[in-house]
Amino acid sequence: MHLEKECRVVVLGAGFGGLTFCQNFHHPNARITVVDRTNHHLFQPLLYQVAACGLSAPEIAQPIRGILSNRADITVLFHQAVDFDLAQKRVVLEKGALDYDYLVLALGGQTGYFGHPEWEQFAPGLKTLDDALRIRSRILLAFEQAENETDPAERDRLLTIVVVGGGPTGVELAGAFAELTRTVLNRDFRRIDPTKARIILIEGSPLILSHLPQDLSASAQRQLEALGVQIRNNIHVKDIRAGEVELANGEIIRAGNILWAAGVSATPLTKNLGVELDKAGRVKVNPDLSVPGHPEIFAIGDMALVLQDNGKPVPGVSPAAMQMGKHVAKIIEAEIQAGTKTAARPAFKYWDKGTMATIGRSAAVAWIGRFKFSGLLAWLAWLFIHLIFLVGFRNRLAVLFQWTYSYFSYKRSARIITYMPAETLNAKVPGNKLVVPPP
Amino acid sequence: MHLEKECRVVVLGAGFGGLTFCQNFHHPNARITVVDRTNHHLFQPLLYQVAACGLSAPEIAQPIRGILSNRADITVLFHQAVDFDLAQKRVVLEKGALDYDYLVLALGGQTGYFGHPEWEQFAPGLKTLDDALRIRSRILLAFEQAENETDPAERDRLLTIVVVGGGPTGVELAGAFAELTRTVLNRDFRRIDPTKARIILIEGSPLILSHLPQDLSASAQRQLEALGVQIRNNIHVKDIRAGEVELANGEIIRAGNILWAAGVSATPLTKNLGVELDKAGRVKVNPDLSVPGHPEIFAIGDMALVLQDNGKPVPGVSPAAMQMGKHVAKIIEAEIQAGTKTAARPAFKYWDKGTMATIGRSAAVAWIGRFKFSGLLAWLAWLFIHLIFLVGFRNRLAVLFQWTYSYFSYKRSARIITYMPAETLNAKVPGNKLVVPPP
Repeated sequence: MHLEKECRVVVLGAGFGGLTFCQNFHHPNARITVVDRTNHHLFQPLLYQVAACGLSAPEIAQPIRGILSNRADITVLFHQAVDFDLAQKRVVLEKGALDYDYLVLALGGQTGYFGHPEWEQFAPGLKTLDDALRIRSRILLAFEQAENETDPAERDRLLTIVVVGGGPTGVELAGAFAELTRTVLNRDFRRIDPTKARIILIEGSPLILSHLPQDLSASAQRQLEALGVQIRNNIHVKDIRAGEVELANGEIIRAGNILWAAGVSATPLTKNLGVELDKAGRVKVNPDLSVPGHPEIFAIGDMALVLQDNGKPVPGVSPAAMQMGKHVAKIIEAEIQAGTKTAARPAFKYWDKGTMATIGRSAAVAWIGRFKFSGLLAWLAWLFIHLIFLVGFRNRLAVLFQWTYSYFSYKRSARIITYMPAETLNAKVPGNKLVVPPP
Repeated sequence: MHLEKECRVVVLGAGFGGLTFCQNFHHPNARITVVDRTNHHLFQPLLYQVAACGLSAPEIAQPIRGILSNRADITVLFHQAVDFDLAQKRVVLEKGALDYDYLVLALGGQTGYFGHPEWEQFAPGLKTLDDALRIRSRILLAFEQAENETDPAERDRLLTIVVVGGGPTGVELAGAFAELTRTVLNRDFRRIDPTKARIILIEGSPLILSHLPQDLSASAQRQLEALGVQIRNNIHVKDIRAGEVELANGEIIRAGNILWAAGVSATPLTKNLGVELDKAGRVKVNPDLSVPGHPEIFAIGDMALVLQDNGKPVPGVSPAAMQMGKHVAKIIEAEIQAGTKTAARPAFKYWDKGTMATIGRSAAVAWIGRFKFSGLLAWLAWLFIHLIFLVGFRNRLAVLFQWTYSYFSYKRSARIITYMPAETLNAKVPGNKLVVPPP
């Protein structure tokens, strides 16, 4: 590959992978353009806390321009890639195009519905800040409607939250909603008892958090149940309709809110690369993370399928995306420095720093190296790690403050319904009817 | 008036007036129902800071249920009043109705367009959290679009913000946007220079902040101009269309964002009371704040027109609404205690605690009793007063933290575009076209 004097590096996506690439890539001959369809880098591991009224949106998001403002060699575009012209080495944007010498694909994933896109309207997923803010409003709204409801069956429906999928996101959401209803909302209503709200977690496999050792997974299940979550293991969802979930055995659960945490698929743009994908739409990359047949294109993070030495794929977690970003930065830096594509590129090797999931106050599980933790110790480790990795000094302090305050006060700061004009609130939630009982 | 054993008090609106009424009204024989169409009490004096990326929404809002959770005698309804049945003493809600013995109307105001409701779509006002979040996104979006724009005239349009109305809200918005562009966004872009953004404040009368003494008003004008705001005094707006404002002299100002801070009118529900209203739709209440002909109904805050001894109306500010709420609470308490409507009710007397407006960093004006302040001292007074009156211990600490951080870092925490799905962003702002210049 011939490298011109000025090498154009285009990065699609400013999530953990794309941002880490930028922060680790420096070369005087390179000009970097980062394209993202939001204006912020999102700290996704805490997104469920925005949905559960614990944190506000700006506390887990940082403007991409702000993070990279001291990098004169980086241009940030608020834009969306819609196609590739691989022969011309060009990314097609909604309007216009960008030529590249190197292309780093770090577009992440989106909620996947296993071939049932029609479920999305009834069971939203949690990938963006907008998703989280909408879920927050819908959950709070269901309790408001229940307070006004005279029909006991309808009231019970409104007070039921179903979370589909027992992975980390599903477990964190279920735990956070159980705490919200049991310890935060419990004092606020006069006609309903929020502690009677049913939080139901549905998992297709025999165990929740099935990527963890069996004893940790069982411990997580016990801790969730202690918070009041009903766990339905070993059963699949057959259909989702407005306000109800049908299970494989024909059982129907009526719910005021249904949340989908069961699947992630790569951005559909991977289909336009003309290379082999796995069933989740991820690119089967080469060991160096380049896209087969295109040494100038790399795919990292949740949109890449990378197999480890043990045959298992590298998990779709933020440390993996960050390690990949750094790996690719070093490859491209070295090649620009050498003035040519080097014969042999190093293979990516995932360093598993451990895995953890939080369940609630003093409740979590963690698996770090040979060590397994449950309960308070795992929870403290989780808090510490998440504060350390949260991007931005202000965000770290603000989140630490919110957590400390919530811990002692049993309050959550962001119990605010926004995002829907009041006039249309009633139209927006399936099955809603507002009835005020006679005084 | 015959008072039954249990007296039903209905309060419409949980703003400053309605909430202060609740907090000051206590009687064992009374049962209070508060109706609000949002789930939060909003600290409106800081709303412009949410629009200008300085604060996040939950920092200036508190869930109404949370504030009143320890008051077992108060029921909060998330609902909307749509009419009155005055003969039956009944409030008609969207669904259902509420009977009252006493009715406290504290519904506040809404943005008024002087008979031009069609301007609202092009020039949004700032009354609710949703308004502020939408404005925040639109302002940030205009800068993103300008960064992608090749046509210099269109780029200048996108970098122009017009604020119509030189009252406190208009002044605070203009000052906050001037600071945002000059000291926060200035490092973030590569193709545009945000410090060149034009912030234009249009005021129909000869002076901005015309309720203040002339020297303070002139000081405010100088401080705003020092921040880079262009002030157009003494000129009216003739028309507002997509992306442009036409002035009375025929001049047309093209702008990426037009904000309306020129008028407030009372909720249109006042028309259903069948009593005399002023031209802003406010109820001309009796000296005791009751609605003429209806001793059991009171109107307080921005929806009431109350004349002071000097013939001037009580201003539509939060301290006035709070004082009215307290006044009515004492009247109703005394009457329930006496078991009958007392012959003579005390007249409401407004205690003017002073007035202030903030302009920017170390820039403000304040008029307290015989004392007039400008600049740093007025600004510190403004900060102090707003922190004291902000509802909620957590909010006070969080806002103090944000302000301290912003003061020292010249950063603003909430530069986050939310509220619009990325796919439709381009359709939502008038005149937008995304063009990426060739690299």
